[in-house]
Amino acid sequence: MNTPELIRRKREGGTLSEEELRFLIEGYLAGGIEEYQISALLMAVFFQGMTPDEAATLTRIMMNSGRTYDWSTVPGPKSDKHSTGGVGDKVSLILAPLVAAAGIVNPMVSGRGLGHSGGTLDKLDAVPGYRWNLSEKELKAQLEKVGCAIIGQTNDFVPADKRLYALRDVTATVESIPLICASILSKKAASGTESLAMDVKCGSGAFMESEEKARALAEQLVAIGTQLGLKTSALLTQMNQPLGITVGNALEVRESIDVLKGGGPSDTRGITIELCAEMLVLAGRAPGIDPAKKTLVELLDSGRALEKFTEWIEAQGGDPHIVDNSSLLGSAPDRTSFVAKDNGVIQCMNTRQIGVAANMLGAGRMKTTDDVDPAVGLEVLVNVGDEIEKGQELVRIHHRGGKGLNDCERLLADAVETGEDSVRSLQPILHRVSARA
Amino acid sequence: MNTPELIRRKREGGTLSEEELRFLIEGYLAGGIEEYQISALLMAVFFQGMTPDEAATLTRIMMNSGRTYDWSTVPGPKSDKHSTGGVGDKVSLILAPLVAAAGIVNPMVSGRGLGHSGGTLDKLDAVPGYRWNLSEKELKAQLEKVGCAIIGQTNDFVPADKRLYALRDVTATVESIPLICASILSKKAASGTESLAMDVKCGSGAFMESEEKARALAEQLVAIGTQLGLKTSALLTQMNQPLGITVGNALEVRESIDVLKGGGPSDTRGITIELCAEMLVLAGRAPGIDPAKKTLVELLDSGRALEKFTEWIEAQGGDPHIVDNSSLLGSAPDRTSFVAKDNGVIQCMNTRQIGVAANMLGAGRMKTTDDVDPAVGLEVLVNVGDEIEKGQELVRIHHRGGKGLNDCERLLADAVETGEDSVRSLQPILHRVSARA
Repeated sequence: MNTPELIRRKREGGTLSEEELRFLIEGYLAGGIEEYQISALLMAVFFQGMTPDEAATLTRIMMNSGRTYDWSTVPGPKSDKHSTGGVGDKVSLILAPLVAAAGIVNPMVSGRGLGHSGGTLDKLDAVPGYRWNLSEKELKAQLEKVGCAIIGQTNDFVPADKRLYALRDVTATVESIPLICASILSKKAASGTESLAMDVKCGSGAFMESEEKARALAEQLVAIGTQLGLKTSALLTQMNQPLGITVGNALEVRESIDVLKGGGPSDTRGITIELCAEMLVLAGRAPGIDPAKKTLVELLDSGRALEKFTEWIEAQGGDPHIVDNSSLLGSAPDRTSFVAKDNGVIQCMNTRQIGVAANMLGAGRMKTTDDVDPAVGLEVLVNVGDEIEKGQELVRIHHRGGKGLNDCERLLADAVETGEDSVRSLQPILHRVSARA
Repeated sequence: MNTPELIRRKREGGTLSEEELRFLIEGYLAGGIEEYQISALLMAVFFQGMTPDEAATLTRIMMNSGRTYDWSTVPGPKSDKHSTGGVGDKVSLILAPLVAAAGIVNPMVSGRGLGHSGGTLDKLDAVPGYRWNLSEKELKAQLEKVGCAIIGQTNDFVPADKRLYALRDVTATVESIPLICASILSKKAASGTESLAMDVKCGSGAFMESEEKARALAEQLVAIGTQLGLKTSALLTQMNQPLGITVGNALEVRESIDVLKGGGPSDTRGITIELCAEMLVLAGRAPGIDPAKKTLVELLDSGRALEKFTEWIEAQGGDPHIVDNSSLLGSAPDRTSFVAKDNGVIQCMNTRQIGVAANMLGAGRMKTTDDVDPAVGLEVLVNVGDEIEKGQELVRIHHRGGKGLNDCERLLADAVETGEDSVRSLQPILHRVSARA
């Protein structure tokens, strides 16, 4: 096979066969096909797209580039959730024990945060003793006993995605729907799940800012996931303000525990229940979304989800006393209030910038080598549409001795827009895409 | 400056400033910007194009990446020709001494053949003693004394084009009009010419097969050349059959000498005169195309062009006796006739395949490391539209002991299509693009 000829075919809008894609991806990983050829191919894919079949084939090849997990000997339906990332998105921490309490096996492989959006493993780093690097044997035992686990990616987990993603990042080829789908789905398929609820975030703090693009991504994810034999559905959810109240690792674990105790902010609780309901229906554990939600509400309000959370954290080496003593998560020594300058109404929020503001304090990374401070972060005390008074505390900044505080305040001043017009509060769920329909 | 951000801008259809293009190209040559980033950028340019201004800026940056020639101290107008390449295209060998005889200084930097199309330096290798690697001092002296020279590219001549072209070749980004223009014009501008007649070949043996694409290329070449301060015009010329009768290096030198003696095939003579006339007009040496042609015909028919040819060949170390004794060019030991199978009319020719058929004998290279045999080649004795009889010799194959003969005959059988319909003979000049209009 001739690499320039294959690139030319894609450039002209043609499709590549399984054999051809295998030649390209395996050749790239083995070193026979050059990085500059793959980046040209990726740019051609950006312009010409891929058919769902072609993207599913690419996904399968990527998935099989390293170790894959097989949980067929673990009893129960295997189901998982993936979010395209946002600000204050702590859903996984609540969802994993909640669906496990409902009889689902959730083998979740998670990542770290970069840029404005956080990562689940960073949040779990705030839990003293938590180990993300379980062996396959340990993981299997935990899935059998507890029903859920959140682990990190080992180096041999979908190496094709690691290589391709790093290349896309420096060649302006990230924003291609089939490539995004292949990246997400190759990892989820390799983690051994049988079904997948996608949380496609949409708005100023999301990877896909416009609803149109988010919807296109959601539809492709469902189409390609289905092609792969993965039962998939997707929710488009709000990211024009942070999810819940907290942004920052220990703060978000605290909010998650609040939700698991039956409380917490209504949007965090609501979106988590909706995603879990999708998983229950996909996994055949509920006859429909409404009965699924009823089950989930009972599990939260009865404390059984919280029990499962404690069991899970303890199984992975974490200190279960965090549930009753949140000071064990650590807290920042200093607080500063970001207050309203005038009476008015919150018009909108640049959510991405709020994420970056938290990073300034040390809550996340702008580059992979940045250190993360688990204790710092923000409490965003208002939502879009709220009426506010001059001097009212809008954001409580948790910082360490003023580190990054000026930058943080400057970004917040720019990110939170107030005015006189009355504004509707934001809808948490925007759209549902399901292969069932 | 941020490289992925610049690639993204081009990907979204934006333009890059001079400073940004300089950053990218100079960074690429210096090693700070990676090959995989440049190939992604080139693919984005393939899809989004470049404005004439942007392409002219890129050309200027490429031109200045290495040594440039300046002939301002050599008296007389400096003018040159460039062809996009074809089969049997020996025009440069006739044109250089012909325009020099008309008072023009022609400093031509030429290349070697690859694929189906030949290279001028390969043809000149058939001339015993000819030296393509003149020093700048020798070249200047020859331009002052003779008025023309054909040399090869030194390593420090437009190195940006060498690097970019090699990258485009393996990443399917050759066929981009602004990139083709920048490649051609950077070299021509660096060679120190003041004006340029472009021969844009069009048809089955040309880089641009369709007249539409060839015309678009011609228009962009004239627009960007003019932006660069180079007086430029372009002819679209026929490449649906080989130019003239011969394909192969020594054979083509022989045909060129025939034309310089006032004879030769009418298409080779005709196209050469047209291109030279463009150069005379661009250089201000003739008031219009018709008077220019009259001058050129006189120079050919009087033998003054042939005298200039002899003078040039001798100045560059070649044996001038080739003019009277063509056996000095070498000839292949064996001849085989490729004959008509039936009575009929030549319907069309796959000219590219005829070029490849000649390469099978050793006349050219399919890859850069192939050896070239100057003596072998083809005499194509018929044109499209000719009536032929069964058994008539259509092509005379000059080969060395049958080497490549079977492949050559197989390709010719496929390339020359005969039938019963009467067909018009092909027009040599298809279109003229001039900045003068």
